[in-house]
Amino acid sequence: MKTFLDCYPCFLDQALRAGRMATGDESKVRELMDRVGPILHGIPPEYSPPETGDLIYRMVAEVTGVKDPFERSKKEHIAKALDLYPELNKLIGQSRDPLLTAVRLAVAGNVIDLGIKRSFRLEEEIRKVLRQDFAIFHFREFRQSLEEARSVLYIGDNAGESVFDRLLIGELRKPVTYVVREVPVINDVTRGDAVASGLAREAEIISSGTTAPGTILRLCRPEFIKRFHDADMIIAKGQGNYEGLSDCGRTVFFLLMAKCRVIAADLGVQENDIVLKAAGKIP
Amino acid sequence: MKTFLDCYPCFLDQALRAGRMATGDESKVRELMDRVGPILHGIPPEYSPPETGDLIYRMVAEVTGVKDPFERSKKEHIAKALDLYPELNKLIGQSRDPLLTAVRLAVAGNVIDLGIKRSFRLEEEIRKVLRQDFAIFHFREFRQSLEEARSVLYIGDNAGESVFDRLLIGELRKPVTYVVREVPVINDVTRGDAVASGLAREAEIISSGTTAPGTILRLCRPEFIKRFHDADMIIAKGQGNYEGLSDCGRTVFFLLMAKCRVIAADLGVQENDIVLKAAGKIP
Repeated sequence: MKTFLDCYPCFLDQALRAGRMATGDESKVRELMDRVGPILHGIPPEYSPPETGDLIYRMVAEVTGVKDPFERSKKEHIAKALDLYPELNKLIGQSRDPLLTAVRLAVAGNVIDLGIKRSFRLEEEIRKVLRQDFAIFHFREFRQSLEEARSVLYIGDNAGESVFDRLLIGELRKPVTYVVREVPVINDVTRGDAVASGLAREAEIISSGTTAPGTILRLCRPEFIKRFHDADMIIAKGQGNYEGLSDCGRTVFFLLMAKCRVIAADLGVQENDIVLKAAGKIP
Repeated sequence: MKTFLDCYPCFLDQALRAGRMATGDESKVRELMDRVGPILHGIPPEYSPPETGDLIYRMVAEVTGVKDPFERSKKEHIAKALDLYPELNKLIGQSRDPLLTAVRLAVAGNVIDLGIKRSFRLEEEIRKVLRQDFAIFHFREFRQSLEEARSVLYIGDNAGESVFDRLLIGELRKPVTYVVREVPVINDVTRGDAVASGLAREAEIISSGTTAPGTILRLCRPEFIKRFHDADMIIAKGQGNYEGLSDCGRTVFFLLMAKCRVIAADLGVQENDIVLKAAGKIP
């Protein structure tokens, strides 16, 4: 997905929020804003938003000296999600269609997103999503693709949400490779976060090699790109992965909550809708 | 009030929304965004937000060739408010404290603001504000100052809201001078809008001489500045006037709804709170 003009104010807002998470020194935050403003001018429209995100969050680290401003939030979200894990796992076990319930919980977990200016209450959000209709729902294709797949490549999005991914991965009943970001960027899931979420028990964990808050193939390491193209089935969580992979030319099952109007418009849904979309060649 | 870093993303967002109101040509809007981005870098922190707004909305006119992108919205808001006028006037007449009810309605009208990214339903908002507690409520000082004043200088804010101002002006029972912006900027009230709102029957209408979406004295014409300093009592509606006059050194009664977190923080209230604040020297 390309960058829309609507993303510009959001980029500035992200810089501001990340800068303030990193430092209490408002003069540093001003320096950051003064550096981010001018780069917006040069963004090629064909850039996808995570590529600009990559630049911005590098600047946050450079200007503030803090490489992982969201470290504490990520830990709190993982701990909170782990608290809920046993109960949610039981809910899946007791449901009529455990795979469907696990898909719903995985999309509910996508609410844990600190890149977006939007507050959330996790438990309330879970209850809502369990009852909410999907705006796009390629579940039949999802189930069929899963049946035929020998293994699944599962691209994670945020820390904390990773615990919800673990619930779904447990229901896939196939060998799963869980893909994380190479370094901390916003509250995106890294190897350490995946391990803390208990994912090492359920999946092989690999990094895509990217420093961007999303998966843009040409920014990923070659080993990952090969794994991506060879995969039987790919599930990608969240907006950043959708932005990077929506035009990648092969089938990906995108599972996300549309948390901004740009993504919603691109998907043809409303803000706050939930989506399970097979994009690319439908299998 | 000075410009906070939080205002930067909002400035870009304002340019985007005004640009799209002015033209359907997205390449023009891109040109606008590319020109607005870099000027943020040079904003002196002591600038008040309407000063930057002035620059931005001039750029909108320059790049798109449209001097009044909000013209149609303003007309619609005035017409809508005039439809409600007889009923609201009756409500004031029947209330136990007509002045207080008129103050409430004047602040309810402040919801008509197209500078802020925030949708509203006018009738719902009126009902809400009629019951809502004021977060700051210098009504005793307001009433006393009004009793002592020979005349009142009333600085308007938005078109449509101007009809609600007319309701309050009708209850002031003093000669009133109603102040408008010199030229169209956002949906701010101009002389034409004030006349269309029926204000010529209730008040003398003068322009402050400013092209900014707020009242910054040094950008106003000398005749207005003199009137301002000579006035017995000043009422100023809305955020733009607060931003420009909050530190002006004389008592002004600010009547507004806090529609962004920056203003809310400056006033020490919550977003969406309503405020009647006597700032400067309390009489």
